[in-house]
Amino acid sequence: MALLNENYLKLPGNYLFAEIGKRVTAFKNANPEAKVIRLGIGDVTKPLPQASIEAMHKAVDEMGYEATFRGYPEYEGYDFLIRKIIEVDYEKRGITIDSDEVFVSDGAKSDTANIQELFGLDNVIAVTDPVYPVYVDSNVMAGRGGQYTEDGKWSNIVYIPCTAENGFIPQIPKDRADLIYLCFPNNPTGMTLTKAELKKWVDYARGNKSVIFFDSAYEAYISEEDVPRSIYEIEGAKEVAIEFRSFSKTAGFTGTRCAYTIVPKELFAYSNSGDRHNLNRMWYRRQATKFNGVSYIVQRGAEAVFSQAGQAQVEEMIRFYMTNAKIIREGLLSMGIQVFGGVNAPYIWIKTPCGVDSWSFFDKLLNEANVVGTPGIGFGPSGQDYFRLTAFASRENTEEAVRRLQRLQ
Amino acid sequence: MALLNENYLKLPGNYLFAEIGKRVTAFKNANPEAKVIRLGIGDVTKPLPQASIEAMHKAVDEMGYEATFRGYPEYEGYDFLIRKIIEVDYEKRGITIDSDEVFVSDGAKSDTANIQELFGLDNVIAVTDPVYPVYVDSNVMAGRGGQYTEDGKWSNIVYIPCTAENGFIPQIPKDRADLIYLCFPNNPTGMTLTKAELKKWVDYARGNKSVIFFDSAYEAYISEEDVPRSIYEIEGAKEVAIEFRSFSKTAGFTGTRCAYTIVPKELFAYSNSGDRHNLNRMWYRRQATKFNGVSYIVQRGAEAVFSQAGQAQVEEMIRFYMTNAKIIREGLLSMGIQVFGGVNAPYIWIKTPCGVDSWSFFDKLLNEANVVGTPGIGFGPSGQDYFRLTAFASRENTEEAVRRLQRLQ
Repeated sequence: MALLNENYLKLPGNYLFAEIGKRVTAFKNANPEAKVIRLGIGDVTKPLPQASIEAMHKAVDEMGYEATFRGYPEYEGYDFLIRKIIEVDYEKRGITIDSDEVFVSDGAKSDTANIQELFGLDNVIAVTDPVYPVYVDSNVMAGRGGQYTEDGKWSNIVYIPCTAENGFIPQIPKDRADLIYLCFPNNPTGMTLTKAELKKWVDYARGNKSVIFFDSAYEAYISEEDVPRSIYEIEGAKEVAIEFRSFSKTAGFTGTRCAYTIVPKELFAYSNSGDRHNLNRMWYRRQATKFNGVSYIVQRGAEAVFSQAGQAQVEEMIRFYMTNAKIIREGLLSMGIQVFGGVNAPYIWIKTPCGVDSWSFFDKLLNEANVVGTPGIGFGPSGQDYFRLTAFASRENTEEAVRRLQRLQ
Repeated sequence: MALLNENYLKLPGNYLFAEIGKRVTAFKNANPEAKVIRLGIGDVTKPLPQASIEAMHKAVDEMGYEATFRGYPEYEGYDFLIRKIIEVDYEKRGITIDSDEVFVSDGAKSDTANIQELFGLDNVIAVTDPVYPVYVDSNVMAGRGGQYTEDGKWSNIVYIPCTAENGFIPQIPKDRADLIYLCFPNNPTGMTLTKAELKKWVDYARGNKSVIFFDSAYEAYISEEDVPRSIYEIEGAKEVAIEFRSFSKTAGFTGTRCAYTIVPKELFAYSNSGDRHNLNRMWYRRQATKFNGVSYIVQRGAEAVFSQAGQAQVEEMIRFYMTNAKIIREGLLSMGIQVFGGVNAPYIWIKTPCGVDSWSFFDKLLNEANVVGTPGIGFGPSGQDYFRLTAFASRENTEEAVRRLQRLQ
């Protein structure tokens, strides 16, 4: 008899974006004339950089001729892409990464979800709260969650609150934390850590032989000084951290699918008998067994992001989104609302006015302003009474949404 | 302290294709003038169908304009592709599949490796032997392997021998088998099952509440009557089987990456307390959490495979490879070698002459004929004294390889 993985039964039923979709559909059915503006899901809207378009046309052509056709890609990515990643994203910032430390994949979501497979079930997972749900759910599916409790937490997971009260700076937990998920610039809050704050985590991990999963999918949006773009800017981080990067938000690749993960060779995990084992080789083995690499065409498109033209096009795209962020930020600030993020990230995290809870605020915005955002509670218990707006809409819709919000007062 | 998944430590060190690569490199270094012909790894060499090339150019263009740009794909695949899959691959053969039973992915390798996550660790896994290593290794990584024993088997996995002695027809095991991996046409043997033989497995699974993972990645190569292309041609199979399909071998997508998996809604797994749960919804949850869909461009390329032009181009490609298979088959048969497969699959499975073991035969072919194949033992203990050749090389290289083998006598 086929027995199921009972951890799946513990997952709460309503996935955040499914519930949002349900409420929006119900509203639209009741108000077919309403023009709903979506500032909810974090999906880009600008077309791909022209450099990537050109490179992919060329790659498609190559796939049409026997002499230039490409079969199975390398599991870890083509060398032409890996070299560019190292050169532009790391060497230019004084960080040395070897080519066999880079693993190209179809998405940071896949990698941040799959990385836990390398580790035993007895590790204690720590997440900042609010948090990208994939970190938690992938561990619950594997059996590291414990029980889901009434306060919206999993009993075996350590939650590190990041709220207005502590300036969104996660504090080192008193409890043991073996595997620590950090995402900065943060999804959903849009807030960042300084190098000094990030160093505390690296030092903690070095002292406790913990491993940090550093998700820097939003690093391209950083505009301020002293905000690390890579955790490897912190001394000793290569001994304790895996870094996840993506072309999704950097270059509009959400529908094209390409990302990469750095697993340094200095990084180890431990067996129960105390031996240390190289995580780089374990990840290679995982990817070689359960993944077959990224489409040649897509990797050529990603490579072109690093060309001079590609870099300029990407900068323009990011400037556009960050102008949206500024419009939302300033529009809400002028209303006297507490606003966070939106300076080094495309996410604006607002404290719901008058202590209205996240879902009530969602309903109010949908019904009265026809604007869709994301209830903070969907990202974890510390997201209650918060709300996320994103900077990815068109300029026109962004401005119109702000006007509607201002009329709400 | 970060504890590792100790199951990884059990995996034997030398991965089959890595060991082959090592020996070929050593030979080439010692014999730089030798012209080595590779009939080893199962990778295609013909360019993509022109219909896919055209469709991908169009899709790349769409990604370059705001009005036609596509962001995050649906986790389960675009409807335009799913409709074609159902229509051409199933409805035309009298099989009804609902659109929410189809899950598009980046590869059958990923899906066949990941599917085990839905199941508990106490299931007994059964595989035919020889076997595609991914089925076994993904279960070992999860902790269902037990110990690796001297006879090349995992202590907790049931091996079902498929050899010349039993006509490569797997027999229902006497031991319990909860999750059964079947791949037909088979990799590596190239052999098939009749509907009557496949029905025995479906009936066994229905009687025992087992689940069959049916890998039909090579169905496009079937040329004979009475060979099922889909397990759903067997009555009741939707209650017990998940089917994996791929564009890799069908349409040359090994470097383009697209596949799909059918998880019928009639299919259940059981909790320890005996409740049944819908595997279709569990797989959706898994994919939604740990995967983010396939590139829009690639899905358009896959859709074009189902166009009239695409189907004709794919047929021509398969005819080419199967002519290679015939050349290898007949060349070896004329030498008095026992040859299997190569009629409904691009793989030719040969019994090594004079009882030479797989690796000795590999070395002999490499050194004396400069031809690379795959030692059967690499696919499991019942592969000992067998050897796999593939039909994916150019016509010239295929003919030259056969000539060299014939000179070996």
